[in-house]
Amino acid sequence: MSVQHDCPWCYIGKARFEQGLAAFPHKDEVEVVYRSFELEPNRAKGDIAEVIPMLAKKYGMSLEQAHAAEARVAENARSSGLDYVLGAHDVGNTFDVHRLIHFAAAQGRQRGLVAAMFHAHFADERSIFDDARLVDLAVEAGLDKDEAAAVLADGTAYAGAVRADEAEAAALGANGVPFFVLDRKYGVSGGQPAEVFTQALEEAWATYTPPAKLMSVGAADAEACGADGCEIG
Amino acid sequence: MSVQHDCPWCYIGKARFEQGLAAFPHKDEVEVVYRSFELEPNRAKGDIAEVIPMLAKKYGMSLEQAHAAEARVAENARSSGLDYVLGAHDVGNTFDVHRLIHFAAAQGRQRGLVAAMFHAHFADERSIFDDARLVDLAVEAGLDKDEAAAVLADGTAYAGAVRADEAEAAALGANGVPFFVLDRKYGVSGGQPAEVFTQALEEAWATYTPPAKLMSVGAADAEACGADGCEIG
Repeated sequence: MSVQHDCPWCYIGKARFEQGLAAFPHKDEVEVVYRSFELEPNRAKGDIAEVIPMLAKKYGMSLEQAHAAEARVAENARSSGLDYVLGAHDVGNTFDVHRLIHFAAAQGRQRGLVAAMFHAHFADERSIFDDARLVDLAVEAGLDKDEAAAVLADGTAYAGAVRADEAEAAALGANGVPFFVLDRKYGVSGGQPAEVFTQALEEAWATYTPPAKLMSVGAADAEACGADGCEIG
Repeated sequence: MSVQHDCPWCYIGKARFEQGLAAFPHKDEVEVVYRSFELEPNRAKGDIAEVIPMLAKKYGMSLEQAHAAEARVAENARSSGLDYVLGAHDVGNTFDVHRLIHFAAAQGRQRGLVAAMFHAHFADERSIFDDARLVDLAVEAGLDKDEAAAVLADGTAYAGAVRADEAEAAALGANGVPFFVLDRKYGVSGGQPAEVFTQALEEAWATYTPPAKLMSVGAADAEACGADGCEIG
């Protein structure tokens, strides 16, 4: 699943996916991995904008029209069971958020941090574009405070993992988010109804084939090194 | 390709692979990516051993026998065109080396750093299990000195990328190194002759099929966010 934390349809789509997954008979055998996708990779770190004025400017609307548009998004969120503080969130560069989520993944804490990030961004008035707040959310998700701070301070940490996800999204033809990939075979784009996700899971389940064993080329006993050491002559 | 920098057959196998690749007509269309594999993941950082006494102890041989075994490995290296300083290298935990190579990959410098690491380890008397030396090798491969030092100092940097490679090796059934995977379909294990690699490349080329397009499930126009913004109601 590719998600971006400025993207309300990711917040909503994630909830609908989870509802669809809950209705899937083999749900306990499904592994969910979140991938990085930036909507505004060229936005400078620290360039933060409030959502309603940003919408008005971007779409050439009045502030009232932007507020009404945001209210329709909020209504979609609430009808999917989500809290949503109307107009309170801001937008910014999410690269550091993605790096931190990869750090969480390496500690088996990805799911908790992603949930905490979405809730903080859309259901709380405080900004997530703030290192101290991100550290608090990391701690909430069970991560070590100093380690999370060190990851945020070092812009190279997990940067390659974010870039690799983005390259894979491009290779798979994902131009927007949320974008859900099942078994690298089925793609679901956007905040679809929960039943669509259940249906996609059922199709992917029905056509799943375990990865083929590699075909071996060359002698089986060529010199190599393993857990018991190297062949030595 | 999975390699481990304490593994002489990786050093030799890499050279033979490159010879085999040079003889492959489509060599310019082949992308080579190095993956991480640790032979002694539980060896403590800083627990460094000289290779000849280590071999003697590990295989219950005299020092003379260990020296002769190492001499046979050296002869294999030299017959593949490689420098090899007999008995000079040491063994240690390679996790930081792998983290640094992932950092190099993120900067497009993986190939140069891998080559520098192998040469430094097997063809020079100085140890690579030393952060200052690793930084020098990183600089030799075109990386920034301070950034490389920061990656080494932060044990979490690129740690997830190393773990992901190791998980993938296990999933593909690679128990030792060198291990070469072509098109996720063919596997070549060990320091095979150059012709075996050419043959494997030819088989992989003949059977290559581009990745299938994802099958789309659900409506094409569900709400999403893209480069031009989010659908807003």
